[in-house]
Amino acid sequence: MLVAPGLAASAVRSLERAAGRPAEPDGTVPDGPYVYVGATLPDELRGDGLLWFHSVNAGTDALLGAGPWPAGALLTRTVGRMGERIAQYVLAWVLAECQSVPEFAAQHARAEWRRIPSELAAGQTAVVHGTGRIGSAVAGLLGACGIRTVGVARTPREAPPGFDAMAGTDEPVAARWVVSALPLTGATAGYFGADRFAAMGGATFVNVGRGATVDLAALESALHAGTVGRAVLDVLPDEPAVPGDPCWRLPRTVITSHSAGITADDDVVTDFTACLRELRAGRVPALAVDTARGY
Amino acid sequence: MLVAPGLAASAVRSLERAAGRPAEPDGTVPDGPYVYVGATLPDELRGDGLLWFHSVNAGTDALLGAGPWPAGALLTRTVGRMGERIAQYVLAWVLAECQSVPEFAAQHARAEWRRIPSELAAGQTAVVHGTGRIGSAVAGLLGACGIRTVGVARTPREAPPGFDAMAGTDEPVAARWVVSALPLTGATAGYFGADRFAAMGGATFVNVGRGATVDLAALESALHAGTVGRAVLDVLPDEPAVPGDPCWRLPRTVITSHSAGITADDDVVTDFTACLRELRAGRVPALAVDTARGY
Repeated sequence: MLVAPGLAASAVRSLERAAGRPAEPDGTVPDGPYVYVGATLPDELRGDGLLWFHSVNAGTDALLGAGPWPAGALLTRTVGRMGERIAQYVLAWVLAECQSVPEFAAQHARAEWRRIPSELAAGQTAVVHGTGRIGSAVAGLLGACGIRTVGVARTPREAPPGFDAMAGTDEPVAARWVVSALPLTGATAGYFGADRFAAMGGATFVNVGRGATVDLAALESALHAGTVGRAVLDVLPDEPAVPGDPCWRLPRTVITSHSAGITADDDVVTDFTACLRELRAGRVPALAVDTARGY
Repeated sequence: MLVAPGLAASAVRSLERAAGRPAEPDGTVPDGPYVYVGATLPDELRGDGLLWFHSVNAGTDALLGAGPWPAGALLTRTVGRMGERIAQYVLAWVLAECQSVPEFAAQHARAEWRRIPSELAAGQTAVVHGTGRIGSAVAGLLGACGIRTVGVARTPREAPPGFDAMAGTDEPVAARWVVSALPLTGATAGYFGADRFAAMGGATFVNVGRGATVDLAALESALHAGTVGRAVLDVLPDEPAVPGDPCWRLPRTVITSHSAGITADDDVVTDFTACLRELRAGRVPALAVDTARGY
């Protein structure tokens, strides 16, 4: 078993205990078959010996985009409490807007007493693009706050847990909030372009999926036109954004530096152990990635 | 029926329809018995003719503090969706702190990309002082976000809806959040003083009850000592705060200008109509205030 650098020593010890094998020092290219726990897969490890790669991240687009995936190698990913974390991020920004949190913070700094009526989130509608684990967790938490949730999926299906209703990708739905939890695949690159933004009717757009699913120039035009009311972007097509990046000047937008749903080392150990348990029982792990489809 | 100025004309018409009586112009002192819908009760209307006063607000401390309540006059109040509104306010500020909303807004303004790990609210504990309608609504919504809620009441009782557990007023409970939804009565004035703040163990204190339940000097000392980590104050003992008020200089505090749970005219009509329905059925309205107890 190989473990990438960056993981805490205590997490490495936990992985060793779970696997019943010692972790090899970084830089080793094993002779026999091996398992690798890491973020990226170096070229020298893309050989036939790779049985299983467990990603310490939930998104595997960069990993799969770096070259053809070694034939026959299993890919699993770490989700941990990421659904819960990202759901709380989305709800925090939804309620922050309803309750004017940044405005009150600024007003307080000016020692200004001024009442600002709040917007009641209960009864509003949120459209959530992406109805997997993360989209479902987001919808479930928004629903607990009284927000009606409509899931959008490419293929028609029953509403997954957390969703009140489903809609097709191009079906118009009047909504106060549009949330994207989409993975990055060939089918979702540039998914949010001029047409989709033009149809948003002034909604606030929250992106907790992948930055490259958004055409930033189209978002900028939509913000200027008002068809997108506000934007909260955790992710960008190019990260990190340098101080001179034009993204910082998008109107009515906050960028949060890819901070929603940071996975903890504990999450890696928990999810690796769960995958191992399923493999030992002869099952395909629930956290396995379909390397052709990309998620 | 008399209606105070300030209520929208459409709301006045709705009240007239509900009561089946015309609203008299403001300033009239009726000869016969009368019902008054308003915020304050002018001295000239404190006579024997007052059958019923319906307050457009939820808090009736100022009203009851202005003089002895006319014997035999019913007092009811407007709660509307106030529980829901205040609950969303509390959750917004809880999640804003967990997700560093003000910090990200400031970082964005500086065009700074810097990851800030979030704090997962799920699994934390909140103590809620005041277990009436508003306290219960707050607890219910925090609970929906995975926060364990402990209600504090003066008299031991079963946990009301929304609460996971109950504690006595002086029972120590380790908590990440301390929320007050207390009304102002003789028993709650200065309720949050040096001893209670010293026992908070660094929790964030959120006050959506009444300002005068808090000893502000004690809060300031506790914020300096760190026994209160942060404070979010919707209410103050003296409102509004002028620009030079020392409250604006409390460390790690945000004051939100008594904006949580502003009642709408619609709420007044809905609650007045509900009270009327109960009175016609010969029942004491659920929104009636015990004028001796003060809430």
